[in-house]
Amino acid sequence: MTNEENALYYADYLELEKILNSQHPKTAHLPNGAGDEMLFIVIHQAYELWFKQIIYELDLVNGIFTQDDINDNSGDMSNAVHKLKRVVKILELLNKQVDILETMTPMDFLEFRNYLVPSSGFQSAQFRLIEAKLGLKMEQRYKADYYKHTRKGGFIQSDFDAVNQAEATSTLKDLVIKWAERTPFFDAELWKEYQSQYHPNDDSADKFWLDYKRIYQDSLSANEKGRLEDFENVFFKEGRGEFSAPAMRAVLFIMLYRNLPIFQLPFELLSVLIAIDELLSNWRYKHILMVRRMIGMRVGTGGTSGAGYLEGALSQHYIFKELTEIATFLVERSRLPELPNAVKDKMSFNSR
Amino acid sequence: MTNEENALYYADYLELEKILNSQHPKTAHLPNGAGDEMLFIVIHQAYELWFKQIIYELDLVNGIFTQDDINDNSGDMSNAVHKLKRVVKILELLNKQVDILETMTPMDFLEFRNYLVPSSGFQSAQFRLIEAKLGLKMEQRYKADYYKHTRKGGFIQSDFDAVNQAEATSTLKDLVIKWAERTPFFDAELWKEYQSQYHPNDDSADKFWLDYKRIYQDSLSANEKGRLEDFENVFFKEGRGEFSAPAMRAVLFIMLYRNLPIFQLPFELLSVLIAIDELLSNWRYKHILMVRRMIGMRVGTGGTSGAGYLEGALSQHYIFKELTEIATFLVERSRLPELPNAVKDKMSFNSR
Amino acid sequence: MTNEENALYYADYLELEKILNSQHPKTAHLPNGAGDEMLFIVIHQAYELWFKQIIYELDLVNGIFTQDDINDNSGDMSNAVHKLKRVVKILELLNKQVDILETMTPMDFLEFRNYLVPSSGFQSAQFRLIEAKLGLKMEQRYKADYYKHTRKGGFIQSDFDAVNQAEATSTLKDLVIKWAERTPFFDAELWKEYQSQYHPNDDSADKFWLDYKRIYQDSLSANEKGRLEDFENVFFKEGRGEFSAPAMRAVLFIMLYRNLPIFQLPFELLSVLIAIDELLSNWRYKHILMVRRMIGMRVGTGGTSGAGYLEGALSQHYIFKELTEIATFLVERSRLPELPNAVKDKMSFNSR
Amino acid sequence: MTNEENALYYADYLELEKILNSQHPKTAHLPNGAGDEMLFIVIHQAYELWFKQIIYELDLVNGIFTQDDINDNSGDMSNAVHKLKRVVKILELLNKQVDILETMTPMDFLEFRNYLVPSSGFQSAQFRLIEAKLGLKMEQRYKADYYKHTRKGGFIQSDFDAVNQAEATSTLKDLVIKWAERTPFFDAELWKEYQSQYHPNDDSADKFWLDYKRIYQDSLSANEKGRLEDFENVFFKEGRGEFSAPAMRAVLFIMLYRNLPIFQLPFELLSVLIAIDELLSNWRYKHILMVRRMIGMRVGTGGTSGAGYLEGALSQHYIFKELTEIATFLVERSRLPELPNAVKDKMSFNSR
Repeated sequence: MTNEENALYYADYLELEKILNSQHPKTAHLPNGAGDEMLFIVIHQAYELWFKQIIYELDLVNGIFTQDDINDNSGDMSNAVHKLKRVVKILELLNKQVDILETMTPMDFLEFRNYLVPSSGFQSAQFRLIEAKLGLKMEQRYKADYYKHTRKGGFIQSDFDAVNQAEATSTLKDLVIKWAERTPFFDAELWKEYQSQYHPNDDSADKFWLDYKRIYQDSLSANEKGRLEDFENVFFKEGRGEFSAPAMRAVLFIMLYRNLPIFQLPFELLSVLIAIDELLSNWRYKHILMVRRMIGMRVGTGGTSGAGYLEGALSQHYIFKELTEIATFLVERSRLPELPNAVKDKMSFNSR
Repeated sequence: MTNEENALYYADYLELEKILNSQHPKTAHLPNGAGDEMLFIVIHQAYELWFKQIIYELDLVNGIFTQDDINDNSGDMSNAVHKLKRVVKILELLNKQVDILETMTPMDFLEFRNYLVPSSGFQSAQFRLIEAKLGLKMEQRYKADYYKHTRKGGFIQSDFDAVNQAEATSTLKDLVIKWAERTPFFDAELWKEYQSQYHPNDDSADKFWLDYKRIYQDSLSANEKGRLEDFENVFFKEGRGEFSAPAMRAVLFIMLYRNLPIFQLPFELLSVLIAIDELLSNWRYKHILMVRRMIGMRVGTGGTSGAGYLEGALSQHYIFKELTEIATFLVERSRLPELPNAVKDKMSFNSR
Repeated sequence: MTNEENALYYADYLELEKILNSQHPKTAHLPNGAGDEMLFIVIHQAYELWFKQIIYELDLVNGIFTQDDINDNSGDMSNAVHKLKRVVKILELLNKQVDILETMTPMDFLEFRNYLVPSSGFQSAQFRLIEAKLGLKMEQRYKADYYKHTRKGGFIQSDFDAVNQAEATSTLKDLVIKWAERTPFFDAELWKEYQSQYHPNDDSADKFWLDYKRIYQDSLSANEKGRLEDFENVFFKEGRGEFSAPAMRAVLFIMLYRNLPIFQLPFELLSVLIAIDELLSNWRYKHILMVRRMIGMRVGTGGTSGAGYLEGALSQHYIFKELTEIATFLVERSRLPELPNAVKDKMSFNSR
Repeated sequence: MTNEENALYYADYLELEKILNSQHPKTAHLPNGAGDEMLFIVIHQAYELWFKQIIYELDLVNGIFTQDDINDNSGDMSNAVHKLKRVVKILELLNKQVDILETMTPMDFLEFRNYLVPSSGFQSAQFRLIEAKLGLKMEQRYKADYYKHTRKGGFIQSDFDAVNQAEATSTLKDLVIKWAERTPFFDAELWKEYQSQYHPNDDSADKFWLDYKRIYQDSLSANEKGRLEDFENVFFKEGRGEFSAPAMRAVLFIMLYRNLPIFQLPFELLSVLIAIDELLSNWRYKHILMVRRMIGMRVGTGGTSGAGYLEGALSQHYIFKELTEIATFLVERSRLPELPNAVKDKMSFNSR
């Protein structure tokens, strides 16, 4: 070749020799060839490539949150939010990708479906790793037994172990909870300012939250009064789900005062976690619709109940539901106590 | 003006004087103005404009199917399928439109939420008309009582009546069922060809279906044998849902032999009806996710249970599920009986 | 393992061992690791997977059109249109995929950009094959010299040869032109019906087209009269681009009478070819915007002028422009001559 | 009615009486009714509703930037960026909306096209206002004469005046330039820290920029050396387009050090302005493709050259191109001078 010796070539850089020679349909030998099985392989490989990228980004984000101290001034939080927003964009694409598989008709799927038994998309170790790294625990999974490496149609042992190990490591949910718990804007020193401004004659602690609770109570309509007990539980006793009460207070506070500079990225973090959950849920839902259309009420190739299994996962594999539920406990901005200037200053930029 | 007198002007043609002066936020008087209430109004008006267009297309399609005889040679079916594909494109847009509303945060919604009580999106008469014109019956709706004009947060009487009247008129589902029942490809004359080719010594009727039943039975795995009884019920006794057994047979036959010219548009019709159902379901699901994010576990402005109500509608307001379920009863193309040439000829173009 | 010995496993079926171990960023050794180079590799691999699928579908479609006789009654045309609609869906995804790459900022790209020289996306042999198989000829390409295997940043010889060979084989455009030229609805016998109905005393040929030309002429506004000469050229003399005059007449006739059953799939074919062109153009345009944003006015890694090169390709690599331009020569449906019943019958279904 | 007297009703709140009775197709009287003209009206009304929302958001953003001092600590910048991101989402929808109009075939458009002359989408005053409020000046528009209220097919005087007035008022581009010029991170005091750390024996000004210029020079490949003169011009002499040299320096600095807390929102601002430009360009491009498909080479209803006019606008109506071009002048992060701690502190949060 006359291309410069050793010059990097697109196909070599992307290792296309491997990528483009990894499609071997089981029905290639049939008289009419592989038909839509090629599409079936390619779309799943594209999913797996993107899953790899999601895992890459999640590992990076989890690495940032694993630090003892996430320095808001160092760009860490900005970087973490940026990567998670990319995950959102990828998940949007994966949702859209379902539309391509829908160009395969049930009859076309039937041409190769039986060749796939007992494998199935259920066995995507990378997808299970994504769920695990985000924070889904095995015991929270719908029909956890399905995953067992001892079940036909389940995982092989190494994949089963990998998912379990990802759970055992700090997950994004664990890390976000710890981060919320150690947010510094509740330190006693700072809050003295609040108490002295609004409660000059009473230096007992937690005045802000007592004030907020009263404001919340006032905002409830007659038939919602039961919410107050929830409020007490969520923010002062048990917390909610895996979030402790202090973690829930931190999250609520960020949502309420998101306009303060120091909360802008934390608010974006919470929003993007909710968005990831929504997109995963939506992807599962589109998957259910597609499976119904493709196989109706028949069982899945991996021996699960098909659409039935997916409906179970849809309602249970919801990772950051505690964050979504915070909306229950918000009040109008105009009702919020104005924070004292000294408090606001601490949460603002040094210059300007 | 120097524009030609009486010349049509863009703004006049589109009646923008009215369209662009129909936004009057309830919170316009607040110190900081209307905030996101403007978005809330505009997005719902955009939804309603598109609902109007969907109704316009559905009325046209229902008109086509109301004819005693849909002449496949006249372009009727082509026209109906084309319009329904447009409805699909519109529903895709409406799904995407949800993303814009998600740029409103729960706190921003709270700024004007209480001003809306007891009105709510539930009261969109046009959306209920769409459901009704497609074929959803009041008694199939989740919590049908909610719609009553006697309930605060329900419909006004004229809207309630309009929805009921749309149900009482022939709906697209009714019309499609009737069309399926009268499809001509089962007439006795034609099927004699089949019987004489495959069953020369036996002139009892319905040989094709008996053959198909046996083929289907052979295709079932050991733990699916119960499906055979379903098959018998669906195609020879009760039918399925509102589809009679003959209608279900017609639909199945179209799916099996969709490559025959005369079935190409009917197959597209069935596919597009399934797609409309899926997009409506997906829209409802995205709506649930958005409501959860926006108000958490609080009740809706119209007094429904919020996300809870929507979940009920999601699982019940599924209109063409009988079509989706047909996938349960398909077999591989290679197992299908080859139709006799005389049968195929009748289902083909005259020339070529 | 306790999974059934030899049972098919998802990861093996998809050859994930290869797919997921083909990412080796050149900047992996840097202190902060590979950064966004991983995304860059993964997204290009995803593009290449989809290009493979597009080629797979195009080969199938070209195979159908290569037959001496495409039998409209055999499902061939239905199949071809179905596959091309899938290509449309894939191209829609590839357009959307650009959004993910836009999450990489120019600064993040700079981290690894220099490591890629002289390779570039320009060297995607599969993308060039797609263009070639659709019908783009080397001499129609912007700066055809760029592709030469003798240029640094150009193709290696085997890829250069592959693209040239694809051109030399029948392309989809060639095949569609031949198909249009041999459409049977202009046979003399048939048109006698037209002449005898509308021109009973004149049996010279081509009366339909003379009528249409007059109708078209009447539809032109005063300042468009020059179009008539074009009409003459396009449909009776030179044709347009690579389409002969008879091929252009066939295409026009299909567009005018698309409601006749026999033209429904041909009309969809023409529409989907236009849609493919549009989506490729749109993809190129999004690519231009992305390159401008990423590298501004700097040259591309492959030594092309970056955005400048892409703009040239955008305006020249337009494959089915002759089909798009047909819109210039249409008239309102109400002005069209009603075809004689005998003609319509030949273009309709046998039954009904 | 039994709905509570005076209770707010969905249809009243949304003024649907007006919204849904503003569609009066010019072809309603034809034998087959209005056909696709209804779609044509509805889609343009939906565009106009969204244009109104975009103007609403832009007015709010421009209001924020009109303040003498945008206090980064007050949530102003966060609010502005949030609203502009919403505009991005709306523009994404408007791009997608084009797909619906593409379900109208050229023949269907012809049915009512002549009724529209001389009105056209060109006359959308709101779209021109959006361009003007973003920063497009009349003299930068392609064929500015077209807009004149004295031209048939141009604006009526009041719309023409409104667009001109929007230009005369501070546009978002003007305001962003002023904001960039007054960013405080170049004040002399602060930069002494930089000089004393890196250039202890030389207290002449602008050492950072001299350093950066040298770094940039080193990053250029042999055939890009001409860029250095551009650099000098853009950042130290004339500036670029409407951006002065100090404004360009501010923008470059933000891009280089976007990880510093105080630059995170400014970086998002720049990114979102580029994204708005891209989406408008993409929308114009999709529009060109659609017009070509719909009318081929015929002139537009408003008397413009149709696709030709749009191509001119595509290349000229690019508003924030100076921001996009900044990518030309970036260097790898690893080459950047580390800012002194005192500088970084000033650009960070007070606490933590």
